[in-house]
Amino acid sequence: MEEDTGSLPQKNAFSEWYNEILWRADIMDVRYPVKGLYVWYPYGFGIRKRVYGILRDLLDRDHEETLFPLLIPENEFMKEAEHIKGFEEEVYWVTHGGTTPLDVKLALRPTSETAIYPMYALWIRSHADLPIKLYQIVNTFRYETKHTRPLIRLREITSFKEAHTVHATWEEAEEQVREALARYREFYDLLCIPVLISRRPDWDKFPGADYTMAVDTIMPDGKTLQIGTVHHLGDHFSRTFSMTYEDANGEQQFCQQTCYGISERSIAALISMHGDDAGLFIPPAVAPVQIIIVPILVKKRTDEVMAAVAALQEELQCAGYRVRTDSRDMRPGAKYYYWEMRGVPIRIELGPRDLDAGTVTVVTRRGEKSQVMRSDLNTSLAAIVEGIKEDLQRTAAEHIKNHLFFVDDVSGLPDAVGCGVAAVFWCGDRGCADRIEEITSASVLGTDVGYEGIVVQEGDCIICGKPHSVVTLVGRSY
Amino acid sequence: MEEDTGSLPQKNAFSEWYNEILWRADIMDVRYPVKGLYVWYPYGFGIRKRVYGILRDLLDRDHEETLFPLLIPENEFMKEAEHIKGFEEEVYWVTHGGTTPLDVKLALRPTSETAIYPMYALWIRSHADLPIKLYQIVNTFRYETKHTRPLIRLREITSFKEAHTVHATWEEAEEQVREALARYREFYDLLCIPVLISRRPDWDKFPGADYTMAVDTIMPDGKTLQIGTVHHLGDHFSRTFSMTYEDANGEQQFCQQTCYGISERSIAALISMHGDDAGLFIPPAVAPVQIIIVPILVKKRTDEVMAAVAALQEELQCAGYRVRTDSRDMRPGAKYYYWEMRGVPIRIELGPRDLDAGTVTVVTRRGEKSQVMRSDLNTSLAAIVEGIKEDLQRTAAEHIKNHLFFVDDVSGLPDAVGCGVAAVFWCGDRGCADRIEEITSASVLGTDVGYEGIVVQEGDCIICGKPHSVVTLVGRSY
Repeated sequence: MEEDTGSLPQKNAFSEWYNEILWRADIMDVRYPVKGLYVWYPYGFGIRKRVYGILRDLLDRDHEETLFPLLIPENEFMKEAEHIKGFEEEVYWVTHGGTTPLDVKLALRPTSETAIYPMYALWIRSHADLPIKLYQIVNTFRYETKHTRPLIRLREITSFKEAHTVHATWEEAEEQVREALARYREFYDLLCIPVLISRRPDWDKFPGADYTMAVDTIMPDGKTLQIGTVHHLGDHFSRTFSMTYEDANGEQQFCQQTCYGISERSIAALISMHGDDAGLFIPPAVAPVQIIIVPILVKKRTDEVMAAVAALQEELQCAGYRVRTDSRDMRPGAKYYYWEMRGVPIRIELGPRDLDAGTVTVVTRRGEKSQVMRSDLNTSLAAIVEGIKEDLQRTAAEHIKNHLFFVDDVSGLPDAVGCGVAAVFWCGDRGCADRIEEITSASVLGTDVGYEGIVVQEGDCIICGKPHSVVTLVGRSY
Repeated sequence: MEEDTGSLPQKNAFSEWYNEILWRADIMDVRYPVKGLYVWYPYGFGIRKRVYGILRDLLDRDHEETLFPLLIPENEFMKEAEHIKGFEEEVYWVTHGGTTPLDVKLALRPTSETAIYPMYALWIRSHADLPIKLYQIVNTFRYETKHTRPLIRLREITSFKEAHTVHATWEEAEEQVREALARYREFYDLLCIPVLISRRPDWDKFPGADYTMAVDTIMPDGKTLQIGTVHHLGDHFSRTFSMTYEDANGEQQFCQQTCYGISERSIAALISMHGDDAGLFIPPAVAPVQIIIVPILVKKRTDEVMAAVAALQEELQCAGYRVRTDSRDMRPGAKYYYWEMRGVPIRIELGPRDLDAGTVTVVTRRGEKSQVMRSDLNTSLAAIVEGIKEDLQRTAAEHIKNHLFFVDDVSGLPDAVGCGVAAVFWCGDRGCADRIEEITSASVLGTDVGYEGIVVQEGDCIICGKPHSVVTLVGRSY
């Protein structure tokens, strides 16, 4: 929606690159007149729609989608002491309807436990009602006082997928935590984003949870981005909201719960992981435009080329591709630039020479060019799409590998954390963690690390030397 | 989610029927602890999802979907004088972030003109940028002081589809008004809901519009429900928000705009129009479950029947139907009752006799029963689905016809409006309209009536007798 003037900063100047790509690639407009709130351009919204479509499909296997109100009355919101402590500085309050002060202040949900669980308490009677597995995709709000950043640190999170499950036993809830993590891993696999899973230290868990498992990825600058969390809530909330069920013996029991969320940070990760100096690179699965056709026009044969292009577009559409033709009156090179910026994974050029040879020219967003026989196009494209996915996965996996460092000596810690994430052994003692954080100016991300590149799980604590300490991730986070 | 005890009130006690059906058919839970806010049950959400899926498909033909922030700063919100006058008593205000008072109060959007148009002003430079046709589906808020009612009069409208277009000329905007109305008519056709289109009188138009076209339907109790509006905004907002473009001659011109919306009232109409004494009747196009299979079990042949049922479900799923099997341990009659309440349009019963005869028993939600050869099932089902759609359209059209009365004498007005909608001739004079409203305790809905049942468009004003007065709808509205 803006003129493309000047050039994109190089990706190794990540912060500048990120800010610029958002408007150059029509993702978001940051000029909305309230700090921390942004506008989705239609193209960016098209990516969001497909990313959340995938998430829906994954959850719809055994969850049901629902929708709860945005506004939570103060008295409900204030019931769970730990929870409110975690959010009291961050909650937006509605105090007036028109010119009338409200009797009960209303919170804009920062997350929906206190909106949903009073209703669950009404719905659940017996063990036959369990498990419940619902989710919703909604806007949530945080009055962020830190520096805000589009898609990453927002005052309106426009796209929060939150799931809330209820189980009869703590173990069943724990099993759900594992399932949710597996589902999230699958989701990020489809987006070609490798993840590091770990158990957050106790002081960094969700307010009101037994424990929190986090899904992080490593951004181009080596900082981690938390792109998903799964919380075992135990019976903290069920005791607060009187969520009980009658078990098989006729006894009343408190419910056991989990909740887990993913926000538009998933899109921030998508953009950041795959983009390059020329712009975005959107995986075919979620690209609003998967194939852009650029006609190569020579005066005499314009009609002929345009007819072939129209037939090609029709054919590709029927084959199920999201395809567009760029027939604007511009140089082909300017069109290439335009669609590369927007990350369209495949470009097809079709000109007089292709017509004569019975071919088209296929160029991937990575720049691999091939002449493909028109008659073989469907088969070739399927292979090219698969190749792009593998390319993105491989490149992203390399990136993570290159930014994750095993460190067994304190002297190596600052450098490692300066470049990426350090894996160290930690005894679990708070004092040692404080020391690690002090040395690195970074955070202990978590233990129980799930990442295939990590095999050795035990060693001597990097601070106190205590044996049988567990592998622990340390990094600077967004 | 609740036990089905007691019976549904008869539909001719519409208000009671409506309140009961919402929870009996798993549409909404009204027990959320804030007035005017409700919870979508998963089943209700499944209907919503499909209804809005249709709306998206219709708009995506030539609109693009986008997303703007919920929070509007007071200074922007207050810019358009007429607009704010229309909303000042209804706007929720966020005044605090955490414990900190905000410098600028933030309105929860009651509608998004004042959020979107400052951005449009940044985006539009020249006539080449026009037209713009964007839409979003969002939650909006009104501090309703009147009696609230689920899906109809809400404090959180959870599902507001609002489109906002920008054009170079007033005429092009007017053409867009016509197109939007055609699109809305198409939408409601697919939901089998007949509509009355009319131009709202000047005193009832959208605050800040040149004029408002409204889409109404008639509810079972004869009252009208406004289920869509299309506004020609002229240049009211573009003058306020400095939305100008450079025309072909290099002159700056103010933009011309339209906006049009549909809310979850579309679902209220869907429920109310088609339901009956036994529950909902959801058109196949938007039914979360289109076919429910009920196995008829006789002890000896249980395995055989269940195997046939599984094969049937598989086959119907592959054919693209949303199908479920009810294999709960309950009497078939109780299952029929359950799924009729939820409006599933087609039930298939399959028992030993069907197995022997190579048939299945198909029953529509209207109660039409037929034995269908298993081998012909696909063809038969296509015809049955089509027949259900026609049945719903015909029945709904009858309902409108039976509740719309031509009235040419004042003495007939109160009775007509007591039963439904009156069509009268009105001279356009405010005094005569006031008189009509006084006599009927109802509202002048509008002129320029679009409804195929109305042919004569001119006559003598029902109040003052002035000739060449235009046909005008009068009714009690929700």
